[in-house]
Parts: sequence; C-alpha cells; structure tokens
Amino acid sequence: MAVMGPLEPRRIVRLESDAVVLLDQRRLPDEEVELRCRSAAEVAEAIRTLAIRGAPAIGVAAAYGYALAALRGDDLEAAHDVLVSSRPTAVNLAWALGEMRADPTPERARAIHDAEVERCHRMATHATALVAPGSTLLTHCNTGGLATGGYGTALGAIRAAWEAGLVERVWVDETRPLLQGARLTAWELDALGIPFAVIADGAAASLIAAGEADAVFVGADRIAANGDVANKVGTYGLALAADRHDVPLVVVAPTSTLDPGTPTGADMPIEERDPAEVSARYPSRNPAFDVTPASLIAAIVTEEGIHRPPYAESLPSKVPS
Amino acid sequence: MAVMGPLEPRRIVRLESDAVVLLDQRRLPDEEVELRCRSAAEVAEAIRTLAIRGAPAIGVAAAYGYALAALRGDDLEAAHDVLVSSRPTAVNLAWALGEMRADPTPERARAIHDAEVERCHRMATHATALVAPGSTLLTHCNTGGLATGGYGTALGAIRAAWEAGLVERVWVDETRPLLQGARLTAWELDALGIPFAVIADGAAASLIAAGEADAVFVGADRIAANGDVANKVGTYGLALAADRHDVPLVVVAPTSTLDPGTPTGADMPIEERDPAEVSARYPSRNPAFDVTPASLIAAIVTEEGIHRPPYAESLPSKVPS
Repeated sequence: MAVMGPLEPRRIVRLESDAVVLLDQRRLPDEEVELRCRSAAEVAEAIRTLAIRGAPAIGVAAAYGYALAALRGDDLEAAHDVLVSSRPTAVNLAWALGEMRADPTPERARAIHDAEVERCHRMATHATALVAPGSTLLTHCNTGGLATGGYGTALGAIRAAWEAGLVERVWVDETRPLLQGARLTAWELDALGIPFAVIADGAAASLIAAGEADAVFVGADRIAANGDVANKVGTYGLALAADRHDVPLVVVAPTSTLDPGTPTGADMPIEERDPAEVSARYPSRNPAFDVTPASLIAAIVTEEGIHRPPYAESLPSKVPS
Repeated sequence: MAVMGPLEPRRIVRLESDAVVLLDQRRLPDEEVELRCRSAAEVAEAIRTLAIRGAPAIGVAAAYGYALAALRGDDLEAAHDVLVSSRPTAVNLAWALGEMRADPTPERARAIHDAEVERCHRMATHATALVAPGSTLLTHCNTGGLATGGYGTALGAIRAAWEAGLVERVWVDETRPLLQGARLTAWELDALGIPFAVIADGAAASLIAAGEADAVFVGADRIAANGDVANKVGTYGLALAADRHDVPLVVVAPTSTLDPGTPTGADMPIEERDPAEVSARYPSRNPAFDVTPASLIAAIVTEEGIHRPPYAESLPSKVPS
C-alpha cells in the first residue's frame, strides 16, 4: 500500500464506507491523528470545532458528510441542515451541499474534492505571475492543503512560486486565537522545505513598513459581488498596512468562494465564536472573520485567472465543479 | 500592618535593606508572587526576563537596583552597565540611572518612584479631557500600575476617565506574544471593576472599522523629538486602523519617556527578543516594539498637559523628577 504524504488530498479528508475520515487539525502539529465521523452530524461537529477548517475544505467535508448520510439511508434534509449551519461565513458549504442534493453519491463528493484540488493548481499557476523573483511573501491563517483538501489557495500559490524559484522566504502570521498560522501553515511549510518564520500578528504591519514583505497573499471565506472579501480576522489590518506601503494584497480563492448574491461585504454574516477561544479567564470577544474592502485588494486570483478592479466587472461567474 | 491593595506602588516594586522586591509579572494573573532580587544583576535579569516591564516601571526598578548596589558597596559602574543594557528600547532606564549616579541613595530611588506615580495621576487628569461621555476605549499591551510602578499611563487615563463616569467599556488587545493585555491589563481592569473584553490583536482593526471604539489609548517606550513613538509591537497597525476610520490615537507617557536626542523614530533601536517567545517549535521573528509616526497620533499626553502636532514644537522638555 502506498504511503500517503502529509499533504495528500485523501489523507486530509476522505469518504470510507462507514465514515468521513479526516486529519484532525486541532491536534496539529503535535500529533497527526485521524478522526472518524460516522454521521453527517459528526461531520458537522468536526467542522464546527475546527477539526477541519478552511472554506474549500469544509465544502468538501460537507459533501462527503452528505454522501455518507445517503449511504446510510439517513434523512437527507436533516443532514443538509446540520451541515449547512455548522459554520456561517463560508459560502462553499452551501454551494457544495447544493451540488450534492442533485447527486448524493460518493462519486459526486469525490469529484467535488478532486475539482477543488484541481482548481488550487490552476489558481497557483495563475498567481505565480504576480510573484517577482526573490520575493518575501507574507501570509495569514492557513490556506494550504489542510484548508482546501489539497494543495491550497494562497499557500498553494506561494508553494508554486517557491517551486518556480521565485520565493526567498515566507512570513507566517501566527493567527490568534487558534494559531492556524503558527500550527498549520508552519507545519505545511516545514513539510515542504520552504523557508519561513512565524511572527505575532501585531508584528506584520511594522515588517511591511520596513520593506520586509514584497506581497501579502491571503485566502477568502466569502467574496461579495463587488470584490469585498471576508477572511480570517486580522486580514483587514494587514490590508491597511499593505495599502499604506504600496505592497500588493493578493486574494487567492476558488470560484466556489464567490457569492454573487451578496452585493457587498456589509451584507456578509461574520461568525462570532466562543469567547473562551480568546481567554478562558476573562470576558472576551471573538469575531472569526473580518471584511477587507475591494479597494484594498490588488488582485483576486481564481482558477479562471487574475482578476483586477473593478471586481464587479472582472470576477467570473461561479463555476460548477 | 496595613494590607497593600493589588495595585499599591510599593507592592509592584520596592527597595528593602537587602533586596529589590517586585511582583513577578510573568506569573500573573495565575499567581501573585513576589520576586526578591539581591543585586543589581538580579534586578537586570528581572527586567530582561519581564518579571517587571513597562518603560516607567523598569526605570523605577533600575533606580532601586542601583541604590541596592550602593547599599551593598558594590561597583556602581558595573551596576549601571548591567542595568542600562537590560532592555534597549526604553529610554527611562538610562534616564533613571543618570539621576541615581548623582545621588545613589534609597531616598532618591523612592523619590523617582513616587514622582513617576505622581506623573501618572497628572497625565490621567489631563487625558480625561479627551474622553467623551459613554466612550468605548481600546488599548494595547499593559500600561497600568504594573507598567509604571503605580496607577499607569494610558491605562491610568482610562481608569481616571472611568472613575469620572465617561467610559462604558474597554477593549483589551491580548498583545502577543507575551499577552500583557490578556494577562496584566485584564488583571488590573478586573481588580478595578472596569467593564472590559479581551480581543485577539487581529480583531482590533475590524472593531474600529465597525465604529466600536471611540478612541485608542496607548503608552510609549520612547518618544523621538518629532513625536514618533516606539511602543509595543502592534501599535503601528492599530494606528493605521484608527487613522483610516478617524478614531483618535492618544499616546499617554511621562516626560521621562521623551528622547529629545533622537530626531525621529527611524533612529530608535528596536529590541528583537528570543524567537521562542513566538514559537518554541518553528523558526520565528520577534520584534518587541514598532514605531508609530507622529502623523498618526492625535495627541500625546504627558504630566505637563495635552500636546498636539507639530510635536517638535509642542512636546515639553524632559522634566527631572
């Protein structure tokens, strides 16, 4: 039996006959442990508790969860409802479940997964054109194979640019409160052998001011019709620093992240998570995402190509997998 | 014997006959433990390892450490050198040690301490004029009694404004990597009964964008002649967000923080601390401070009053204690 590499798509998430099996991202980088979810409700719980996260990856996991419910002969409306409400901000979830309703088979779910990974490769190829030789890139949260079910969006672009010899180093925002950068992006970059350093989120602005980042690459959880982007909290502050110092902020996200039915960022729901993720001891507030206005984004890269402002005109239609 | 309250100046740091005794801030809020430093070198080590931190407080601790060396009959040049090099960015340290060289007595050190606390009260009184009734204020790092040897700079101003009935709530940046906000500011606000919530540093920009902060109050580790301010890393990003949304950024710092000999922020040394503070597992980078340009600062409040741009003209002279 072939050994799966750490970033193989089917290792990150897969459907077996009686379970959706996924690499438990809550326990990385300390332990590489698989979690077996035996129902749609258990998949929804894995999504809610961030055992799997990242907008494209939760779409894939939800598709597998729906297929599992169909295999089990469970109530598919109940499966849909529990999965679609597991995270409110990512639009991929609703999109993938819509696709599964029309064809609730394992084959359809795997096709959604494979198409998501294939889109990552196409995004990365397009995005490489935006990276100058010798670049130091800064990224936030985790947008790699773990976030997408394979390869990655912004981190996939960074990987492709590094493989093309264009990248010198990557700054990784640790991304509090859940440290997706310090835990997951660092784990992936380490596995890939790409030089990087983790920084406190608050250090990014001064590194950008000092000319130590040539571009900022981030993913997206939802993109409004006008190009406003909901992404992991902290992205907006990065965007302000990048804008102030004429460093391009590039968003890399598949068309499954587009939400043409939502006119602007002001209309996107922002998930508030358990305050205990920030402080177990004192009162706290924990918005999971923020909105970066289109005016601060130099380019949005999808699998269809590089899109420039005005995004209302340049963004492609949502592309079915 | 009178019980000292949690924020009594002599509980935060004091000189006894054979030791400088300080509340070990590394162990707050979990434990309230005193650390006894029996030589200037031990005081320097306490400063270097952040058992006591905050620009005014380390000036006070250094003054006590120098007085202790004099009491012990130690080499005062060696005491000066080990203390002055314990932290590179704060200018209060060199200033307090300069004062002690002229009069290396416990009385002089206690006078420096008392004057620092007195300056805090005067700053707070001035700064209250900048707070509108019903304000929600955002702050970064810890600038309270712990940071100053009593009462506080920016957090002292917030305390005075709250006591005057002007403050509704305080957002506390957790302030990674060492969580001075989540640990120390939260501990102080909790002790004072002031309503607050801790947030991830990356959440501040979107709260400001949403109109959920009426002003941002921060301290300073060093202020250049032109009004550029070195402060805890993350301050610059806050300043950019505040500027973008027309929220005033107010710096509250005693004149002992002024460094008229340094023309601009570009000339200020920025301490790089142990990368392991950010990540024990992966490569990391750990600048402790950043520089906020004077152009982003609505007002600098010292014990002399409220100073407005252009700061090269409005900042007072350094005032001896």
